Amino acid sequence: MENKLAIIGLGYVGLPLAVEFGKKIETTGFDINQSRIQDLIDGVDRTLEVGSDELKQASKLTYTTKFEEIRNCNIYIVTVPTPIDEQKQPDLEPLVKASETVGKVLSHGDIVIFESTVYPGATEEVCVPILEQQSNLTYINTDNCDQVLKGFYCGYSPERINPGDKEHRVTNIKKVTSGSTPAIAEKIDNLYKKIITAGTHKATSIKVAEAAKVIENTQRDVNIALINELALIFNKLDVDTEEVLKAAGSKWNFLPFRPGLVGGHCIGVDPYYLTHKAIEVGYRPEMILAGRRLNDDMGSYVAKQVIELMTKKGIHVVGAKVLVMGLTFKENCPDLRNTRVIDLIKELSDFNCNVDVYDPWIDKEEAKKEYDITPVDTLYDGEYDAVILTVAHDEFKEMGVSKIKRLGKSEHVLYDIKYILDANEVDGRL
Amino acid sequence: MENKLAIIGLGYVGLPLAVEFGKKIETTGFDINQSRIQDLIDGVDRTLEVGSDELKQASKLTYTTKFEEIRNCNIYIVTVPTPIDEQKQPDLEPLVKASETVGKVLSHGDIVIFESTVYPGATEEVCVPILEQQSNLTYINTDNCDQVLKGFYCGYSPERINPGDKEHRVTNIKKVTSGSTPAIAEKIDNLYKKIITAGTHKATSIKVAEAAKVIENTQRDVNIALINELALIFNKLDVDTEEVLKAAGSKWNFLPFRPGLVGGHCIGVDPYYLTHKAIEVGYRPEMILAGRRLNDDMGSYVAKQVIELMTKKGIHVVGAKVLVMGLTFKENCPDLRNTRVIDLIKELSDFNCNVDVYDPWIDKEEAKKEYDITPVDTLYDGEYDAVILTVAHDEFKEMGVSKIKRLGKSEHVLYDIKYILDANEVDGRL
Repeated sequence: MENKLAIIGLGYVGLPLAVEFGKKIETTGFDINQSRIQDLIDGVDRTLEVGSDELKQASKLTYTTKFEEIRNCNIYIVTVPTPIDEQKQPDLEPLVKASETVGKVLSHGDIVIFESTVYPGATEEVCVPILEQQSNLTYINTDNCDQVLKGFYCGYSPERINPGDKEHRVTNIKKVTSGSTPAIAEKIDNLYKKIITAGTHKATSIKVAEAAKVIENTQRDVNIALINELALIFNKLDVDTEEVLKAAGSKWNFLPFRPGLVGGHCIGVDPYYLTHKAIEVGYRPEMILAGRRLNDDMGSYVAKQVIELMTKKGIHVVGAKVLVMGLTFKENCPDLRNTRVIDLIKELSDFNCNVDVYDPWIDKEEAKKEYDITPVDTLYDGEYDAVILTVAHDEFKEMGVSKIKRLGKSEHVLYDIKYILDANEVDGRL
Repeated sequence: MENKLAIIGLGYVGLPLAVEFGKKIETTGFDINQSRIQDLIDGVDRTLEVGSDELKQASKLTYTTKFEEIRNCNIYIVTVPTPIDEQKQPDLEPLVKASETVGKVLSHGDIVIFESTVYPGATEEVCVPILEQQSNLTYINTDNCDQVLKGFYCGYSPERINPGDKEHRVTNIKKVTSGSTPAIAEKIDNLYKKIITAGTHKATSIKVAEAAKVIENTQRDVNIALINELALIFNKLDVDTEEVLKAAGSKWNFLPFRPGLVGGHCIGVDPYYLTHKAIEVGYRPEMILAGRRLNDDMGSYVAKQVIELMTKKGIHVVGAKVLVMGLTFKENCPDLRNTRVIDLIKELSDFNCNVDVYDPWIDKEEAKKEYDITPVDTLYDGEYDAVILTVAHDEFKEMGVSKIKRLGKSEHVLYDIKYILDANEVDGRL
């Protein structure tokens, strides 16, 4: 039987995947966001991950918001977001809703592949029961695949999309695959091999694949947390962190992480999925949660450092005008998801500073909607008591120190989170 | 003036360094250990770091235990160990003693370079005052080097010796250098360049160089601790850690650390130097100390896992014979310093098991003296209720699963800390 694909969720993960499959296989892109679908039909990807030329190349890709239109598909790939709630617990609602939708259109022999980051076990503990209930079909897996059953299969193939990264794309990042039976694992592996030129790694089970994904970003989070901790120590010891990191970096196996805010949809989120599950089975992670605490505190730490530097220069904090340069969670992309620049802004506002945010990359409506922030359009010289470089957008690097310093009043504080400027050009840095 | 070198301390660090310098410059190797000096005069290095051929090549190297014989030197390089005490606090006694010795023979214009791992600031806060007091000379540094002073200079150039590593040797590992004035930093840098083919990295200050060294091993320690924490979680979730690590390792930037015991003279020790100083200045490290706790607990954890597996198989724990294969802190070297296999042995003994230790690499007298352990010479088939592979010596890999399993009784537990065997060949692993 011919493969007919449905991609559920057309965000940062789903769209690039749908486009690649849509170059080769009949693919339907499904999203509940009507304006997103209309944009895509018009050839526009507001996430900037896929250019309009590439959208056109996906000649076998169609878009829909109607679940009835994916009923005739036989492979469903779910790429909805898996965020955390305000208590930093997994928010599985998008995944649950997607499972309900897919469950309604499932037929005997269909395959449902999840790409969303989850904790180990989530696919089979959370999604499968919903699929079974909605479809009235049986989940076919290694334990029952020798029986004659009317049922569906599952797979898990974690996304490794790196937003804004033009070098590592969906096709040239090796992809982990897995399936609920050996034969289906092989079929899913072959499916992805059609588009992934970097090859695949077939994991031994869905749970192993889920675990692999969640530890990738956890490892990154913990490594940045360690460097952040070192920065806190070295600030107290009056040693420049970057100079130490450069010296240590001369050793062949020193890992070149840098301090900073840890935001975004994955690094600052995925560890909470793993720790949620670990606590559920009776182990409270020490390293991972310490890393999360440290990283989550960095915005507030930087704000306090800036306030301290201001008071040392005799600048009044109350009513001070502070410019925050950069709101996205990483450089050179418009992605505002889970940006921790927010913590810095909030802390400065708590000190009664007036904060202006400037970011040439962001969608202003999104900034207003998500964070109630109205970014400034234009920068004026001599306006600010403090300027904080929070994101290393190329535009800020190109401005250089003189243009940036000119934005400050004659007496001002310049703080550089991202080592955009040299140490001797700024008043403080991580 | 011609350089005349003295190397203070001829252990794992000092001897390879003395040999390299001794090929080019008049060098005196000083150690307080009379039998070590006699061995070296006889052309034998019991640490196995330097072969007898290489010892001979160092034609300008002489050895002594008498400090009077290094009085005419003008550059002193201190390479004594910096261990921790039982409260896991820095034990600076060897460093203090070495500073006293050097202080007694210091002359105006001499340079003292420290290679021992310390916390940032230790050279100038601990060693320099001793040198000044013993020598009645002034420490010349950036703050006073424009004055005419009768004094000495200091430098810090951290060792990066990796015991047992035949690939990364003293000459081909890039070396960080630093000095108490810019001119002396340059001189020290040039001195090391004579022997380090991989080049040098001149740090901006002694403190930066000290900090760089201590974070290198801290980073490694924290990374292994994270993997150990993941192993604890995955054991509870009934997922094989190695399979997950392999799947995650298919991502381009996943770091290939593995779980295990963390022993040795540096990785398990250096982080305590940094945390000691951090706590002194008012910051209690979260990540680093969590990492130390986790890694220090692994020996006990493995013992409990083995006990659990034994009881599941109906094997009586009290009086059980357990074979521990490997006592060194790492594979294919005789280095017993700070081996954490000890914790495993202690925990098993606390459960009233009879533990045999087998290790073809170790010096038995040292094992007896340091740990009160008398290793067995010969292994007999059918002897053991449990066999634990603790160190990945090549000899154990060559034995293979059948020979290793034959050591056990008909019913036994085989546990593999180091992934020497395949998952399906053992009863448990990390």
